[in-house]
Amino acid sequence: MTPPPELDLAAARRLLDAQPFSRLLGARLTDFGDGGATLEIDIREDLHQQNGFLHGGVLAYAADNALTFAGGAVLGPAVLTGGFSVQYLRPATGRALRARAHVVHAGRRQAVTRCDLLTVAQDGTETLCAVAQGTVLPVAARTS
Amino acid sequence: MTPPPELDLAAARRLLDAQPFSRLLGARLTDFGDGGATLEIDIREDLHQQNGFLHGGVLAYAADNALTFAGGAVLGPAVLTGGFSVQYLRPATGRALRARAHVVHAGRRQAVTRCDLLTVAQDGTETLCAVAQGTVLPVAARTS
Amino acid sequence: MTPPPELDLAAARRLLDAQPFSRLLGARLTDFGDGGATLEIDIREDLHQQNGFLHGGVLAYAADNALTFAGGAVLGPAVLTGGFSVQYLRPATGRALRARAHVVHAGRRQAVTRCDLLTVAQDGTETLCAVAQGTVLPVAARTS
Amino acid sequence: MTPPPELDLAAARRLLDAQPFSRLLGARLTDFGDGGATLEIDIREDLHQQNGFLHGGVLAYAADNALTFAGGAVLGPAVLTGGFSVQYLRPATGRALRARAHVVHAGRRQAVTRCDLLTVAQDGTETLCAVAQGTVLPVAARTS
Repeated sequence: MTPPPELDLAAARRLLDAQPFSRLLGARLTDFGDGGATLEIDIREDLHQQNGFLHGGVLAYAADNALTFAGGAVLGPAVLTGGFSVQYLRPATGRALRARAHVVHAGRRQAVTRCDLLTVAQDGTETLCAVAQGTVLPVAARTS
Repeated sequence: MTPPPELDLAAARRLLDAQPFSRLLGARLTDFGDGGATLEIDIREDLHQQNGFLHGGVLAYAADNALTFAGGAVLGPAVLTGGFSVQYLRPATGRALRARAHVVHAGRRQAVTRCDLLTVAQDGTETLCAVAQGTVLPVAARTS
Repeated sequence: MTPPPELDLAAARRLLDAQPFSRLLGARLTDFGDGGATLEIDIREDLHQQNGFLHGGVLAYAADNALTFAGGAVLGPAVLTGGFSVQYLRPATGRALRARAHVVHAGRRQAVTRCDLLTVAQDGTETLCAVAQGTVLPVAARTS
Repeated sequence: MTPPPELDLAAARRLLDAQPFSRLLGARLTDFGDGGATLEIDIREDLHQQNGFLHGGVLAYAADNALTFAGGAVLGPAVLTGGFSVQYLRPATGRALRARAHVVHAGRRQAVTRCDLLTVAQDGTETLCAVAQGTVLPVAARTS
């Protein structure tokens, strides 16, 4: 098997920026490489649910995308997310959401990744608010 | 156990409309009750990923929220999502996304729900593009 | 892509019988084909947990194996389970456990399956006690 | 809330030994406390699948039970498993299976746990072969 095309932080940022939905949410990559990726989103009022907390759907987006980019750090840019599982721990509030994902194992057919979702307070304190686990699949020439 | 406060389609729509993130995505409830909920989102360019398909994060949001509203149809409005698992089947494209969730079982401690995520073409044809399964927890007076 | 070697009920039963752990648990295939598989296990005392109910690990085994055989009904015998998610609904008790799985979608890289886990009472009544969802991967010549 | 009845290693071992299915599989607790639990099983021929590897159902049992005991280390003995997700990484072979679980967060309504499933070779080398994530629920006087 030839090694996958490499993806570095700059290329991964261009890829994220090519996702209109990630631009809508204001997501940015703050770390990428060594089998991991960290995605951050500033918590804004229009990302809330009805009680003033960050909407679970934003956490789910961040888990999905951080897992996928972590997979891409190992498998190259031609990947897609097979699926994931997320468990919510507590209401999410603060200055920003930080999704830190790393690849647990990468085989030929799939990479398995874990993600911690943390909120960051004004003073920089992190609070774990959800955990996720998922799979990333290498993409061949065409999708099934 | 006293029955939970009832939630009908009109009240559920007000609840959805009180979620700024759901307004940002343009989500609407098209069906609610009998242990189920259907959420729809028009597919717009700013909900895409880099290849012109609907972003997986939008599918994950729709799964999360449809599961929660289905839980609310049984447990009343004071619920929160414990977590969920989603598997993606194929790239999502079309006119709209439809997330159809129903409660499989509701006990005292949690409700278990399943969700089908379908894209709707211009001619109304539905294509299954993801499946999800999750839990919804009744909320007491305060969160843990 | 050449079609996978076909697997019929008799061949699937030989495959199940070649699994020592399935023999230890007394699992049998009662239905196979058309993208689905049904696995049954008589509930015996040595499959219990501490309160006299069927152990959750037996339900998890049945979900895992029914999902895999359902995948095999579509992809052929050379498959492995990528993973799965299971939610327990109620304590499981009765004469037998029935795990009924079907393939929701089969693509080139993975099949996605759902499984209902039911207990069967002496009079044949079924009670849903857990639900699962998982992925099955086609195996190439060697494992990663 | 009064603190839950405490569960120490000796009491947890008696609880495991009261599970006929755990005795059938030869499971033992090798570590318990501080929000975690480690379960071990000697790999025997009758726990195999058809190719001589440990059956995925044994891994699923070990994930289920290690997660539950880890939850019990925090919530006390009156718990049940809400559900879990497991991803398989590679075929499992060796002298023993070790399932190491810890509680990520415990709230009033559920504890969220993660589990690493490792095989142990004759020389004691550990190989990660599956990862799991699940929820454990405190049980009130009666089940729903």
